[in-house]
Amino acid sequence: MTAVTGFDTFDVRFPTSRSLDGSDAMNPSPDYAAAYLVVRSEDESRSGHAFVFTIGRGNDVELAAIRALEPFVVGRDLDGILDDLGGLWRRLVGDSHLRWLGPEKGVMHMAIGAVVNAFWDLAAKRAGLPLWRLLAGMSPEELLELVDLRYLTDALCRDEALELLSAGQDGKQARIAELEAHGYPAYTTSPGWLGYSDERLTALLEAAVKDGFPQVKLKVGADLDDDRRRLRLAREVVGGGIDIAVDANQVWEVAQAIGWVRELAGFDLAWVEEPTSPDDVLGTAAIRRAIAPVRVACGEHVANRVIFKQLLQAGAIDVMQVDACRVAGVNENLANLLLAAKFGVPVCPHAGGVGLCEVVQHLAFFDYAALSGSSEGRMVEWIDHLHEHFVSPASVVAGRYLAPKAPGTSAEMLASSIAEFAYPSGPSWSGPLATFGGA
Amino acid sequence: MTAVTGFDTFDVRFPTSRSLDGSDAMNPSPDYAAAYLVVRSEDESRSGHAFVFTIGRGNDVELAAIRALEPFVVGRDLDGILDDLGGLWRRLVGDSHLRWLGPEKGVMHMAIGAVVNAFWDLAAKRAGLPLWRLLAGMSPEELLELVDLRYLTDALCRDEALELLSAGQDGKQARIAELEAHGYPAYTTSPGWLGYSDERLTALLEAAVKDGFPQVKLKVGADLDDDRRRLRLAREVVGGGIDIAVDANQVWEVAQAIGWVRELAGFDLAWVEEPTSPDDVLGTAAIRRAIAPVRVACGEHVANRVIFKQLLQAGAIDVMQVDACRVAGVNENLANLLLAAKFGVPVCPHAGGVGLCEVVQHLAFFDYAALSGSSEGRMVEWIDHLHEHFVSPASVVAGRYLAPKAPGTSAEMLASSIAEFAYPSGPSWSGPLATFGGA
Repeated sequence: MTAVTGFDTFDVRFPTSRSLDGSDAMNPSPDYAAAYLVVRSEDESRSGHAFVFTIGRGNDVELAAIRALEPFVVGRDLDGILDDLGGLWRRLVGDSHLRWLGPEKGVMHMAIGAVVNAFWDLAAKRAGLPLWRLLAGMSPEELLELVDLRYLTDALCRDEALELLSAGQDGKQARIAELEAHGYPAYTTSPGWLGYSDERLTALLEAAVKDGFPQVKLKVGADLDDDRRRLRLAREVVGGGIDIAVDANQVWEVAQAIGWVRELAGFDLAWVEEPTSPDDVLGTAAIRRAIAPVRVACGEHVANRVIFKQLLQAGAIDVMQVDACRVAGVNENLANLLLAAKFGVPVCPHAGGVGLCEVVQHLAFFDYAALSGSSEGRMVEWIDHLHEHFVSPASVVAGRYLAPKAPGTSAEMLASSIAEFAYPSGPSWSGPLATFGGA
Repeated sequence: MTAVTGFDTFDVRFPTSRSLDGSDAMNPSPDYAAAYLVVRSEDESRSGHAFVFTIGRGNDVELAAIRALEPFVVGRDLDGILDDLGGLWRRLVGDSHLRWLGPEKGVMHMAIGAVVNAFWDLAAKRAGLPLWRLLAGMSPEELLELVDLRYLTDALCRDEALELLSAGQDGKQARIAELEAHGYPAYTTSPGWLGYSDERLTALLEAAVKDGFPQVKLKVGADLDDDRRRLRLAREVVGGGIDIAVDANQVWEVAQAIGWVRELAGFDLAWVEEPTSPDDVLGTAAIRRAIAPVRVACGEHVANRVIFKQLLQAGAIDVMQVDACRVAGVNENLANLLLAAKFGVPVCPHAGGVGLCEVVQHLAFFDYAALSGSSEGRMVEWIDHLHEHFVSPASVVAGRYLAPKAPGTSAEMLASSIAEFAYPSGPSWSGPLATFGGA
């Protein structure tokens, strides 16, 4: 037996607020950060990497939550854990003491996601496969064993889930081959940050067109006149053949969202993202009804599968945006993908930040290969930023993600990057800006 | 000026799992705990006390979150903060970096609640008043300034809130006098823990009758036959004149809740509490429609005002159970009380644990004095447990909470108790049971 020996944790932060990369109406000056975890075992060659993405302050709190989970796995048989990742999920999410701190939301739930994903990294490495291939190779029964349907059964019962997973097996090998040959569609948010000048917006949009992206996304919601000007500019630059989505990052009230989007509807929006509080199922549904046919997309801040279930039940969203780090890891995202399949809503994962593209691409590839079986209206967000810090960076060519090939979840960061951006002791934080008060 | 100098934090845990006090279908063996905060100032005589209640493991994570908030207030003018507690709330909840860790839910949101409440303790002590009297003495405009209506305006706009607060001023002085003379109704959950034997249940129910409680509450949801037996026994012991509520602590699926409650409906239940996930607005609404006229109560795990808003909009609850430590402190609970008043739903605060009765009683007293103006169908939960650890313990006599009189929020714990139950170093944790693995 190979025992799990412990967690190494790292507070890694990138000073992105200095350049306003990532600035939107809700988040004016993020410092993209990773509460980074390495699960160690007695076999030094076997370690699992994962992280929670945050935007700076509080990254240390997320690390404290991750460390609180160490006693659940230390000393246990690594392969025993990997053979029952559904059991690991239930043990961590179901612990009654830790559950009190959510339940199933916020700091503790995201920490569980990191631990679960670190073991998925180990599982995929053991199998010698990238995560999406490991998942796509499983039987419907094996996949179902990974998913906790608790609180979902009024929308998705076990038999329906099994049926969806079984249907996903049809043509699977051909889709895997197609993905490996041609990748999966991407759209880009790189041009659209609120903090960028019109000149920079224009230059980045021109690059996006040249790079072959079918869709770009702009941040909106701070100032209506600015939004109009930037959307007019964007449409001029990209022309009619490329979709433009907008993202309000939760800044609006329900009535305000409706009014604001109606003012922008003439720009032929591909979708409106996060118009209001991510907890507001009923408010989002009211917005969607009022702004139709403009579509609504949500998910990057949806705390768990129970909120996703309701967004679908209420007809609140046209697009589901799962995130790699918001919920409790791969297992819960499998539940989310199943819910989307049940309701026939396309999944367009949220990405960006640091490392989110790397991890979430696997979910989209799996979804196409072995669940939805369709790429229609589906694509993964892409932001060309901070990928150089990863051992196996995600890669987009001609507007498509290339299929990840390296064994694991692609979460592993370069040791040199971890050292360089360690907070607050790393060289990148030793300047005069390295203190509290970046907001 | 008196500057805020810093936070002292304490991990205080009571080994309640040894006696199964607090055991329910979801939480079989809690160790009631407080992530305890003291806000210090340059004036040693002025300190603010508050805590987040947890049930054991993870209490240290909650403390890490509280400490992450220290830089927001250290060095600032204490009285300046106390003069604008609405501003403090917005600054902490609105910090974009920390917001990413929720938003507005879980570990970080509860930590903000503790910090906000510690400053309310300081504010009430400065005024020489118990919290409820401080709040009841404020004008509608002053109260409204404390409340953030963000994400609520589709259900409750500013003018409506002001109207409700103004209406609450009518007869306020008479109600304050009445509260000081006669207190406020309580109900007891002390008898009903799942881990108790039938003999203990019987003895505690007999005591509850003798003590004059108008309602008792039993934990249910682990085993239907047990629930039937215990409810039959309870009805025999208390007779027909006392209400019996039941609490499932989130263990059911939607359909399961409906079936289970129908089996128990013959016992004339006062309400069914937390039938399913506290995030499941639509599921709870479906349950309520199906089990009517049995009433539904929720709130102790409702993460924020946005979920409460939807529970009310969807007609999902008959009773709103605010909790002192779940949301971001007094300010957010004022929003919750306003929502309840708008929808005409009675508030029966959740209490128990350690210190929850102490703090939440102030909200109920304020609600009666200056907002709802009614005690009809309203009462505060009471569990006669761990009150001896507080400087100004809550007190229930003849089934009614006595009006708190001491200045502050009643959150202050005895220094000797903090030392005795400090985890893991205190004397109470030095025995052989003091390690991880209580679950």
